[in-house]
Amino acid sequence: MDRSDALAIVKKQLTDHRYQHTIGVMNTAIELAEKYQGDVKKSELAAIFHDYAKFRPKEEMKQIIIEQKMPSELLTFNSELWHAPVGAYLVETEVGIKDEEVLNAIKYHTSGRIKMTKLERIIYLADYIEPNRHFPGVEEVREIAQTDLNAALIQSIRNTILFLVKKNQPIFPETFLTYNSLLIEQGGIN
Amino acid sequence: MDRSDALAIVKKQLTDHRYQHTIGVMNTAIELAEKYQGDVKKSELAAIFHDYAKFRPKEEMKQIIIEQKMPSELLTFNSELWHAPVGAYLVETEVGIKDEEVLNAIKYHTSGRIKMTKLERIIYLADYIEPNRHFPGVEEVREIAQTDLNAALIQSIRNTILFLVKKNQPIFPETFLTYNSLLIEQGGIN
Repeated sequence: MDRSDALAIVKKQLTDHRYQHTIGVMNTAIELAEKYQGDVKKSELAAIFHDYAKFRPKEEMKQIIIEQKMPSELLTFNSELWHAPVGAYLVETEVGIKDEEVLNAIKYHTSGRIKMTKLERIIYLADYIEPNRHFPGVEEVREIAQTDLNAALIQSIRNTILFLVKKNQPIFPETFLTYNSLLIEQGGIN
Repeated sequence: MDRSDALAIVKKQLTDHRYQHTIGVMNTAIELAEKYQGDVKKSELAAIFHDYAKFRPKEEMKQIIIEQKMPSELLTFNSELWHAPVGAYLVETEVGIKDEEVLNAIKYHTSGRIKMTKLERIIYLADYIEPNRHFPGVEEVREIAQTDLNAALIQSIRNTILFLVKKNQPIFPETFLTYNSLLIEQGGIN
């Protein structure tokens, strides 16, 4: 699927604001893929579709999570997390994208997971640092991303955990496992 | 076992500084038990023995964790966590305390766990706020503990997670699960 077809499909699913964000993620993902020897075409595709399910009604997402036997603990956490796995499912079934790597990059773009692939890292990070993002700490992550993909990823997940704990919000288990596993990977334990 | 016998046993296992800390935990645990209708005698006993294994050699603790088939993931995390489950084991086998509730309060005093008993909460919190403790945030937890055991517990665990993430340290899974479960208990999710 070429870029303009993909963008035309996703544009219908998103608000203008989210579409601009998607363009930002696409450009950033391509830059990261070029810088870190990732797959540029897959990065582009996953970025374009990463928020495909963002505006689906909660009830529809909930039903998909149940029917498709996704981890039921998703339902006990903030519904902001649902659009990623539901998006991967809908991008496969409605759009017809079958590439597992691309689908997983969509699926894990909010929570992360243990042993993330390079593509998953690129999409997660691009979603966090694309130019339309403005929140405390994002500039630091952007700078780290210039030289170290994994260090930038860890920093973004640290920021997320700090943000949630300061707000007295629960942390999705996958996010916390991602944090620990990235530190282990770095040799940061003991 | 009465207080003076228990203290005499534990004194031999600890440095003077840790013994003073233990006395502080004991007094604080008794106060909390009285305030929140906990079991005062069990709180006293668990507090006295909570750091029983604190100064055992790492190698001995490691061997006990392996031989007693404790969760092996303990070994991939900071050894500061080991003395709690190893302590529960040694307090049972060396001192002869068989009370499961007391042993569990020792076992989970560093990590916490899902569905902590009141006794476990009292010991965890007493260990955190006893008067010899001086670190950022402890005074706030002491104040909350005057009126709300669970809110104080959550605040102490939040502080711990923030401390670890700021230091780029991994979070023991049990600690993070405890955090989430306390928020769920409070009705803090969604």
